[in-house]
Amino acid sequence: MHKFTEKTLKTEKIFEGKVVHLQVDEVELPNGKTSKREIIKHPGAVAILAVTDQNKIILVEQFRKPMDRAMIEIPAGKLEPGEEPEITAVRELEEETGYECDALEHITSFYTAPGFADEILHLYLAKGLKKKEHPKGADEDEFVELMEVTLEEAVKLVEQQKICDAKTAYAIQYLQLKEAKKN
Amino acid sequence: MHKFTEKTLKTEKIFEGKVVHLQVDEVELPNGKTSKREIIKHPGAVAILAVTDQNKIILVEQFRKPMDRAMIEIPAGKLEPGEEPEITAVRELEEETGYECDALEHITSFYTAPGFADEILHLYLAKGLKKKEHPKGADEDEFVELMEVTLEEAVKLVEQQKICDAKTAYAIQYLQLKEAKKN
Repeated sequence: MHKFTEKTLKTEKIFEGKVVHLQVDEVELPNGKTSKREIIKHPGAVAILAVTDQNKIILVEQFRKPMDRAMIEIPAGKLEPGEEPEITAVRELEEETGYECDALEHITSFYTAPGFADEILHLYLAKGLKKKEHPKGADEDEFVELMEVTLEEAVKLVEQQKICDAKTAYAIQYLQLKEAKKN
Repeated sequence: MHKFTEKTLKTEKIFEGKVVHLQVDEVELPNGKTSKREIIKHPGAVAILAVTDQNKIILVEQFRKPMDRAMIEIPAGKLEPGEEPEITAVRELEEETGYECDALEHITSFYTAPGFADEILHLYLAKGLKKKEHPKGADEDEFVELMEVTLEEAVKLVEQQKICDAKTAYAIQYLQLKEAKKN
C-alpha cells in the first residue's frame, strides 16, 4: 500500500445523476487526522482524433452548459456501463461525425481532473475515414456542428484559445509532435 | 448568441462544498425540447511545469482519493476566490515543492472536463528555480513527495502510464515538442 494512502472512514452519497455521482468521503490522513474529500464519480469517456485521407482533423462544435458557451473539441463521448472504450469510440465517431474508420489506434489514457473526479479519458487516433451512408445520428439532446481543419489551422485555434479543451489541445499537440519528429 | 445555445429554465442547487458545487439545470434545447444538465462548478486551478537549471522537471506524487491511488503530476492547485492565477502558481509552487522561480510564462489555459465541469486550468512554465530557505508548507491535509526527472524519464513515465494525468501529459508533450522543434 502507498504510504500516503487515505483510508475511507465514511462515505456519504449526495447525488446520483445520469452522468455524474457525487459523494463526500471522510478520510484518515497519513498523519492520523481526518479530512473530507468531495468526489465526482464518472463512467469514463473516449475522445477520437480523427484524421481524413486529406490530412484534415475533424472537430465538433457544441454548446457546453457548464461554461454556458459553445466549444470546439474533437469528437468524444461517455462510456456506457461495461462498454469497451474501442466500441464507444467507433459509436461516438459515427454519431457525432457520420464517419466510420478503418483503423483505430490507442494513443493514451488519462484522468481529466484527478483533484475532484475519477473520469478517465481514452484517446484514440482514427484513420481510413469513410462517410457512412446512413449513420446513426447524435443523441436527441446533442447538437453538434462539424469542422474539418488542417493541423496548421488547428494549432492556430489553440493559440487563439478558440480551442480551449484539454483533450483537444493534447490531441493537436500530439499531431504536431508527430510531424516535428518526421522532419 | 450561438445558434446551439441552451437556455436555462431552472437551476436546482444540489450541493455546495469546499471544492465543488453541484447543480442541475433544466435547459431548453435548440429544437425546443427540454433536457437536464448536471453541472460541477469549480473555482479553477493552475498547474506549473517547473524546470530546473539542470533541465529536470519537478513532479509531485500524492494520493488522489477519487481514484483511490497515488498519482504523479506536475505541481497544481486551486484558485482562491478572486485570486490571479499567477499568484496561485507562485504559491502552489512554493507550498508543494519549496521552490520559487525567476520567470513564470503562461503556456495555455484549458477546460479539463467540459462535458460536466467548468474547471479551467491555467498552465505555466516556471524557470530560474531556487529552493527557498523557509518555504511555506503544503496545506495540512496535503501530503506530497517530490521527484525530479529528465524529459526522457518523464516521457517514459507517460508511455508506461505511470503518469496518467491530463495536464501532466500535456505539459511533458509541450516540452517534447519544444525540443523537437530545436533540432
